[in-house]
Amino acid sequence: MPSYTPPIRDLHYVLHDVLKVSQMPVPGYGDLDPATTAPILEEAGRLAAEVLAPLNAVGDAEGCRLENGTVRTPPGFSGAFAAMRDGGWNGLDLPEELGGQAMPYVLYTAVGEMFVSANMAFNMYQGLTHGAISAILAHGTDAQKETYLPPMVRLDWTGTMNLTEPHCGTDLGLLRTRAEPQADGSYRITGQKIFISAGDHDMARNIIHLVLAKAPGGGEGTKGISLFIVPKFLVNADGTLGERNAVSVGKIERKMGIHGNATCVMNYDGATGWLLGDLHKGMRAMFTMMNEARLGVGLQGYAVAVPAYQNAAAYARERLQGRAATGPANPAGPADPLIVHPDIRRSLMDQRSFLEGARALTLWGASLIDASHRSGDAGAEGLISLLTPVIKGFQTDKGFQMAAEAQQVWGGHGYVEEQGMSQFARDARITMIYEGANGVQALDLVGRKLAAEGGKPMMAFFGIVKEFIAENDGHEALKTGFLDPLKAASKDLQAAVTYFMQNGMKTPDAALAGSYDFMHLFGHVCLGLMWGRMAKASYAALETGTDDPAFHKAKIATGRYYMARQLPATALHLARITSGPGDVMALPAEAF
Amino acid sequence: MPSYTPPIRDLHYVLHDVLKVSQMPVPGYGDLDPATTAPILEEAGRLAAEVLAPLNAVGDAEGCRLENGTVRTPPGFSGAFAAMRDGGWNGLDLPEELGGQAMPYVLYTAVGEMFVSANMAFNMYQGLTHGAISAILAHGTDAQKETYLPPMVRLDWTGTMNLTEPHCGTDLGLLRTRAEPQADGSYRITGQKIFISAGDHDMARNIIHLVLAKAPGGGEGTKGISLFIVPKFLVNADGTLGERNAVSVGKIERKMGIHGNATCVMNYDGATGWLLGDLHKGMRAMFTMMNEARLGVGLQGYAVAVPAYQNAAAYARERLQGRAATGPANPAGPADPLIVHPDIRRSLMDQRSFLEGARALTLWGASLIDASHRSGDAGAEGLISLLTPVIKGFQTDKGFQMAAEAQQVWGGHGYVEEQGMSQFARDARITMIYEGANGVQALDLVGRKLAAEGGKPMMAFFGIVKEFIAENDGHEALKTGFLDPLKAASKDLQAAVTYFMQNGMKTPDAALAGSYDFMHLFGHVCLGLMWGRMAKASYAALETGTDDPAFHKAKIATGRYYMARQLPATALHLARITSGPGDVMALPAEAF
Repeated sequence: MPSYTPPIRDLHYVLHDVLKVSQMPVPGYGDLDPATTAPILEEAGRLAAEVLAPLNAVGDAEGCRLENGTVRTPPGFSGAFAAMRDGGWNGLDLPEELGGQAMPYVLYTAVGEMFVSANMAFNMYQGLTHGAISAILAHGTDAQKETYLPPMVRLDWTGTMNLTEPHCGTDLGLLRTRAEPQADGSYRITGQKIFISAGDHDMARNIIHLVLAKAPGGGEGTKGISLFIVPKFLVNADGTLGERNAVSVGKIERKMGIHGNATCVMNYDGATGWLLGDLHKGMRAMFTMMNEARLGVGLQGYAVAVPAYQNAAAYARERLQGRAATGPANPAGPADPLIVHPDIRRSLMDQRSFLEGARALTLWGASLIDASHRSGDAGAEGLISLLTPVIKGFQTDKGFQMAAEAQQVWGGHGYVEEQGMSQFARDARITMIYEGANGVQALDLVGRKLAAEGGKPMMAFFGIVKEFIAENDGHEALKTGFLDPLKAASKDLQAAVTYFMQNGMKTPDAALAGSYDFMHLFGHVCLGLMWGRMAKASYAALETGTDDPAFHKAKIATGRYYMARQLPATALHLARITSGPGDVMALPAEAF
Repeated sequence: MPSYTPPIRDLHYVLHDVLKVSQMPVPGYGDLDPATTAPILEEAGRLAAEVLAPLNAVGDAEGCRLENGTVRTPPGFSGAFAAMRDGGWNGLDLPEELGGQAMPYVLYTAVGEMFVSANMAFNMYQGLTHGAISAILAHGTDAQKETYLPPMVRLDWTGTMNLTEPHCGTDLGLLRTRAEPQADGSYRITGQKIFISAGDHDMARNIIHLVLAKAPGGGEGTKGISLFIVPKFLVNADGTLGERNAVSVGKIERKMGIHGNATCVMNYDGATGWLLGDLHKGMRAMFTMMNEARLGVGLQGYAVAVPAYQNAAAYARERLQGRAATGPANPAGPADPLIVHPDIRRSLMDQRSFLEGARALTLWGASLIDASHRSGDAGAEGLISLLTPVIKGFQTDKGFQMAAEAQQVWGGHGYVEEQGMSQFARDARITMIYEGANGVQALDLVGRKLAAEGGKPMMAFFGIVKEFIAENDGHEALKTGFLDPLKAASKDLQAAVTYFMQNGMKTPDAALAGSYDFMHLFGHVCLGLMWGRMAKASYAALETGTDDPAFHKAKIATGRYYMARQLPATALHLARITSGPGDVMALPAEAF
């Protein structure tokens, strides 16, 4: 069974050495000193490593079962969920008046990385509840908040999001689920929803489904969509649970991965629901949660690859196979460990240079969400809106690729389920699909975010890169190893933006045919910037004195690897973009 | 359930329009005219589409079971195997005196693509038998050939290869299975082998295991290894089956994919075996089959992605979701088909431009094996030895990536096992691992093949590219769309070779740290060359007149896409290679 070591030191490094959160001008960040964050991260790490991680393989092997209409989660999940509940982890960043601890979202995100790494399928029950709470917080009436939120914050109840239907995924304008208004102000919800993660289970007393449906009078397409609260058990006026609502599980999907999470077909047969937010404004209500939900999936993308990397590295250090080309490294043994082989190093360096960069980018993104929510910083809001599809699409593509790389280090043993390396790759695969498939992220990025506010957020990003380079240009090692490659990569990004500006208006396909490569080009520049910042922090630590020079030297070496071996991908993506839409669209549809 | 359409037209195109096999100066190729190959490909296509493909999902869902020491294959496999046997497909390229049809290997390969695409796990039972036959043909005594080969050619008996042990995969020098010589000339084989594909099953009367083991007196490491024939049932002098041999199945592995093939732990408890080939020369006996076996896995790499692509394309044409940015393409319907979206096109074009290029490369490779075996062409032998790790490593990496791309087109439905798209990705994943993990292919390429014969095969490859460019330079469309990008990519490959020559001798890590990228760089140049040849053939068809201009136009458009959007990856791989080993090897082993 794979092991998992919470990367507490690395999380601290990003929070305190790189982002320097306690110095950021965001309300609540002043308290985020190492003395406050250390015990929280350590406690979360313990829960992740000791309780959640040992259940990861169990969840994969046992899966969820539908018994008499109720989903039975894998053995041990219920107890672990109680530990998650008792630790108050779901409320870490939620309002105190609802039972939360009102800490910044960036800390919730750092904690979340460990929960996802330990057991991604399990953590989704909590993560989806957190998302549903955000929706009710943003759009619910005071009565709704009072009724639903305290038990949801406590994880006595959980939540789900119901968007997809058999014939409609991305294109929600096609949805058919109907909401008929009733005399008492409620609605009768009828229709079928599919791919509902955590749609049912046996770990909480109630489940609050948030359901997109069409109420009369809203017009065609997405305009007519509203969002409804549909509890599994109706809630009495005093907060106790009443009758079972007319919502049921049609089946559990058999999936490539995340077997521990019940992906349900949900049937609404005239179920009682209540409008959440404004009538016919359901899409807007959904979109307010989008940045956070998509950042969360971007986090899953790299977080699931963290234990994959850890176990690949451990195997490479232990497995004896072959001899180093430079002479035996383990002359007393029958062979050298795999890690002497340069190609194994290449693979491990590809993995860790991505993972550590993605961690920094994700936590920076979470801090931008805090800045937007806590200080109403419009610049931060614009920037995170721009970066969200990049974080989601780039990090999940790379995360899957890196999980597969980690599996490869194990050779044939990586293909056998018993060793657990396959599960990381299979679990990672979903992150590229849900919460908006990555092609849709690329479309959102190029079709909407790039031109938003007249391009202001994109210009702001270039400004950040430029300023970082200008500020640190005097540091020779930083300049040659980091700033120069970052400058070149940023120039490629700029060239892609220019190409879109010059061609995208008159030929939309010119932009859309390059959208996926743009998302990756942008992702690389983001990670290049993050590595620049980390290198700066580590050079500073080494220059001013640190009790852990090996740690900082490893960061610089890993960063140099990224800049030399990953960042040059920007030129390839630019070449693909500027080759234009002609070759992409050349064939008639029937030729496929 | 996914569908599968045998690409007969495309196979014919490569054989006759591109390679022009019947004009190649290889014995037996003169008969390979379209009139001969057409009925064979069509008959094989029927078996693939009608019998094997419908069992692909069954094999995945049901898997193999171990019952009272015998492996039970999935329902339907036994009947399909009988059809494979009755069709004589295993003997297509085997000697007539053994019951085969003595056709060229290139035709066996073309047929094999369809069997693999239809049901990769199933086809391995035949494919491994074919490999074992090759070994006995090359190294067996006349008596051994007479005893074992006719029933194996007929598929009355099947074969396996037993190399791996729990503690040794690539590094066979570590193996512990022992062979003790007996007075009657036989050996007693004792040890445990793992990951034995088709190790046991219920579809044939006997199984001939070829087993690597150490006999006394051979010295340490790989030098002491010999190859043995160990039948499941001992064979009497008259060819009838005798006693059960002391070989048994320890367990069946639970794997990520290819569930229909029984991957067994095989226990040899003093089993009776006979030496195959020379004592202590077992490694050499293994290596003579390597090119063919690895080409076969390279074929699997792209062949499994063929039905994945077909089903992605079909879904993209049918699934209505969203509207084209350029205006509704299906105004009467509720939405446009996915295929109107440029990013879906990008994905499908990435897939098909790889698949069609890989098909041409694989069949060209098979023709080189024929040239080497049938005419003793040393140049062909050198070239295919060089190209084999490229075909295996590059095509399986890309095949997996493309199967995952095809899965992505299906969105959430691609993650659900019911639709079958996940299986293609899970099955494809093994091809990167077995028959020498891709990192080992890269090592073989850079560490052995590149410098073989003083670099003659590598120079021969550059000569082929150069000559092709020079010969066709007068064709303007070919020049700008194909020859110019091929020239640039070939220059990158040349620069990588030069880098290795200048640095690899004094710093082996300089070559080894770039080996994986070199394998991919080389793979892209190979596919660039293949697309150049295909474009030439299709331009010629269009210029001289063809009854299917749409087919040839699609080929040219697909090729142009590859040259514009895939081939530029050579520059990235070169940049990674020339960044040197420093960043790859910078960290101490304990930092991982």
